[in-house]
Amino acid sequence: MSKVSWDDKTMARQNGIVQPLLTDLYQITMAYAYWKSGKVNDAAVFDLFFRTNPFQGEFTIFAGLEECLKFLQNFHYSDSDIEYLRQTLPSTIEPAFFDYLKDLTCKDIILSAIEEGSVVFPRVPLLRVEGPLIIAQLLETTLLTLVNFASLMATNAARYRMFAGKHISLLEFGLRRAQGPDGGLSASKYSYIGGFDGTSNVLAGKMFNIPVKGTHAHSYVTSFSTLDDIQRVTLQHAETREKCNLLEKALDWRNRLSPILDASPEEASDGELAALISYALAFPSGFLALVDTYDVKRSGLLNFCAVALALHECGYTAVGIRIDSGDLAYLSVLARDTFKKIADTFDLPWFAKLTIVASNDINEDTILSLHEQGHAIDCFGIGTHLVTCQRQPALGCVYKLVEINGQPRIKLSQDVGKVTIPGHKKAYRLFGADGHALIDLLQRSSEAAPEVGQKVLCRHPFQESKRAYVIPSKVEHLYKIYWKDGHINTAPKPLSEVRERVQASLRTLRQDIKRNLNPTPYKVAVSDDLYNFIHDLWLQNAPIGELS
Amino acid sequence: MSKVSWDDKTMARQNGIVQPLLTDLYQITMAYAYWKSGKVNDAAVFDLFFRTNPFQGEFTIFAGLEECLKFLQNFHYSDSDIEYLRQTLPSTIEPAFFDYLKDLTCKDIILSAIEEGSVVFPRVPLLRVEGPLIIAQLLETTLLTLVNFASLMATNAARYRMFAGKHISLLEFGLRRAQGPDGGLSASKYSYIGGFDGTSNVLAGKMFNIPVKGTHAHSYVTSFSTLDDIQRVTLQHAETREKCNLLEKALDWRNRLSPILDASPEEASDGELAALISYALAFPSGFLALVDTYDVKRSGLLNFCAVALALHECGYTAVGIRIDSGDLAYLSVLARDTFKKIADTFDLPWFAKLTIVASNDINEDTILSLHEQGHAIDCFGIGTHLVTCQRQPALGCVYKLVEINGQPRIKLSQDVGKVTIPGHKKAYRLFGADGHALIDLLQRSSEAAPEVGQKVLCRHPFQESKRAYVIPSKVEHLYKIYWKDGHINTAPKPLSEVRERVQASLRTLRQDIKRNLNPTPYKVAVSDDLYNFIHDLWLQNAPIGELS
Repeated sequence: MSKVSWDDKTMARQNGIVQPLLTDLYQITMAYAYWKSGKVNDAAVFDLFFRTNPFQGEFTIFAGLEECLKFLQNFHYSDSDIEYLRQTLPSTIEPAFFDYLKDLTCKDIILSAIEEGSVVFPRVPLLRVEGPLIIAQLLETTLLTLVNFASLMATNAARYRMFAGKHISLLEFGLRRAQGPDGGLSASKYSYIGGFDGTSNVLAGKMFNIPVKGTHAHSYVTSFSTLDDIQRVTLQHAETREKCNLLEKALDWRNRLSPILDASPEEASDGELAALISYALAFPSGFLALVDTYDVKRSGLLNFCAVALALHECGYTAVGIRIDSGDLAYLSVLARDTFKKIADTFDLPWFAKLTIVASNDINEDTILSLHEQGHAIDCFGIGTHLVTCQRQPALGCVYKLVEINGQPRIKLSQDVGKVTIPGHKKAYRLFGADGHALIDLLQRSSEAAPEVGQKVLCRHPFQESKRAYVIPSKVEHLYKIYWKDGHINTAPKPLSEVRERVQASLRTLRQDIKRNLNPTPYKVAVSDDLYNFIHDLWLQNAPIGELS
Repeated sequence: MSKVSWDDKTMARQNGIVQPLLTDLYQITMAYAYWKSGKVNDAAVFDLFFRTNPFQGEFTIFAGLEECLKFLQNFHYSDSDIEYLRQTLPSTIEPAFFDYLKDLTCKDIILSAIEEGSVVFPRVPLLRVEGPLIIAQLLETTLLTLVNFASLMATNAARYRMFAGKHISLLEFGLRRAQGPDGGLSASKYSYIGGFDGTSNVLAGKMFNIPVKGTHAHSYVTSFSTLDDIQRVTLQHAETREKCNLLEKALDWRNRLSPILDASPEEASDGELAALISYALAFPSGFLALVDTYDVKRSGLLNFCAVALALHECGYTAVGIRIDSGDLAYLSVLARDTFKKIADTFDLPWFAKLTIVASNDINEDTILSLHEQGHAIDCFGIGTHLVTCQRQPALGCVYKLVEINGQPRIKLSQDVGKVTIPGHKKAYRLFGADGHALIDLLQRSSEAAPEVGQKVLCRHPFQESKRAYVIPSKVEHLYKIYWKDGHINTAPKPLSEVRERVQASLRTLRQDIKRNLNPTPYKVAVSDDLYNFIHDLWLQNAPIGELS
């Protein structure tokens, strides 16, 4: 092991860019073995794809492309990287190899990809990397790292968005439970892409221009014990600019509301009231308060409504409440009923529409169960389950060699699901007359593209009997070249457009493919030509003397 | 939302340090509300602790302290942070608040902590943060982010180490499936702390001085089709420096070995042989080859043994094989038997001891099941399950206010498990005569420390009837002050010492606490004084008119 003390400013991203040493050592040992075998000019094609959709679903959202492009753009081993490798690899490595590494860039790589934010399916490559074998191999781990978590996260968020329904706001609250600082940032970014409306993560807001949201914690409430803990109690009226005593008004309202809420001011916490008043003084136009520190029914709601009505007398409209514990269905309905009763009693229609945010350990199942039970929640704040993708914390993208020096390569396996589809391929999405996507079709790149109105034979890649003719009403060519000749060839879309793309792309999927329970698999097929190509190659590579 | 385009070099870590904006927005809105309430000089105590051990186990390894200290040391809002906040927060925020934020540092914070790498238990604070309420509150999310994943990961790794046994090497291979680039780096670092022997992650090796390991992938093998694909076939003999034709020798050995292995050279893949020869030429002293690209029994083992024996004739000793698919118990035993047979036949005892690495989707259960079945694996390469902590991808540390201006604070909850233990506390670990840890004891800081040989009343924090006298043979005070007066007060230990601390600390736990199935919970108690303190406070805070 190296004895050098490396600059401790080294990190996964230098200037925001992932470094080429963020890879598995075997990529570099393989690079040396290739280099030493004289394979410097070998030309390879690798496919990056996954084999199973995450979360027991039948679709995936592809994300991470922009970061892959930045990585290619900046791919370069620094002097200190080279020095580290020199000390880490066996001393028998020829010095000329390090000179070779030093000059490596991605100028001879061609990266083709599906558009970021698209729905994608098993076996259809998300990325195709063509170029010199050594450099294409060296990109493997980093590209996988960048695509796997981004796509997993975007898919998870898109599922939450789907199950919550369009009319509910979704906020990502997961930073504290994320897998490290960068895990938290990626979670915020790709949740937003997947359809979330904002995040609590301030740095993510700053970096990616994502709306940031937040109010206060239980500790804010418990830091106040009595009404004496508030030092200032007045604010200026929003219009008249006259002094308004928020404390007096809130105490008055608490008494008036007591019979309506069937809660007594004596049972309500004065510390909580003090906290809510002080918070309202700080954010008179943005008053959204946590109401479950002591007891939602006996304390939180009463105190909140009292402060909200006091604020109203001062010319401000409260925003709403957050509930972070207990029976969210029951409590949200209780809160909504209370708000409606107050709206009716005092003829304040806006009060009935106050926002109710819920945020306690929410996952897909909680949302579906709340929908079933009936609730009055407007917004979910979702943390752990969202950002760690608890249901399935990794997506299994792989990066497989499919062609070398013009010769196709197939990876055989006793498990037919792991057999790779060889060769340089194109992918098309065929749409029906109703606008829904029917099937993804992989073809050999030498074949002509399927045409609108013409029947196309679509075959299961491995099961001979499964085949069908499809007559597409629209044909989408799935790949664009994003990187070529050392430059970005197609600019990746900005975050907001990728976010729109996700929803647009999901709309092309039939509902039964997207449903939670037993979704229908979307079909991925190969052309007749590609089918025969695979199976001829399979036969050539089958071991002698074994049933394959 | 801000329309400013922020410098896209912004990232979670600037110069390796986590930034203060990596937090939840509500910390900043609370800071403003506190500031506006005149609470700038309020003094707070927060405890950072967890409520349940992860992975259905009964212990946790505490990690992340060094990163927390770096964060405190560098806590400072940059001008661009302030500008972002100014544009993001409501326009009603008083400008003087931003001046206040601009000058904030951690100089008035005192951070006490348990030693990094120690085994820790529910409810015993890992960190105690004392200081001005606003700044102590502002640290919450970031400290949680830094401790949660680090501790989860170290605990996961320590469990793998325990279940694998001391004599098996463990390598972390998870970068490609980690939760983002930094998730991957943290995983490598904290796996090493938890007891792993190395990582495939080159950047982690460089940054943390962790041994890096790796060989080659299946794609390396499939990139060779025939023996003609090797351009150079000779190497110098290790001692005589004479030319050795590795291809000729390997082909010769393949024929000689065929009857011993009951595998025919015609069935073995020539592409694989070519790949292994080229790899051996590149790494003659480090020849460790993947043998399952085609068929371990019919092709991989025969080719590997042929190349290993050819290398031996050239003066080099092969390292071993890696198996990445199939029945690892069966295949490893098959490989070991084969190696032994060859060792006997050719009187080469070292051959029997070649390393066997296994690496296909390994988790705790796989290891336990392999141990049950019997196997001959020397080293596990572990990826996804390790680095994403698939069994439980988040640790639930929380950060709770326990005292303000000298007054204790308790957070009550209908769920007794969520009630906090109030006040400024000290924690002791009491050891028995046999050196095992007996119990962790929380006391009020004003109490005298328990003494060796003196009986101490230890009480369950919430169940009155549960109490016991303990006579400790050794008393360990768990907290040290790590940060005070704007400086590091106790230097955090270097990685290698933290790694040793983990194993030393685990050895103090009785075996039944560490076992996989139904482990015994380790006891955490409170002193009689603290018990009464909690329950008096509970009573004072109990809502009127409700059974609590």
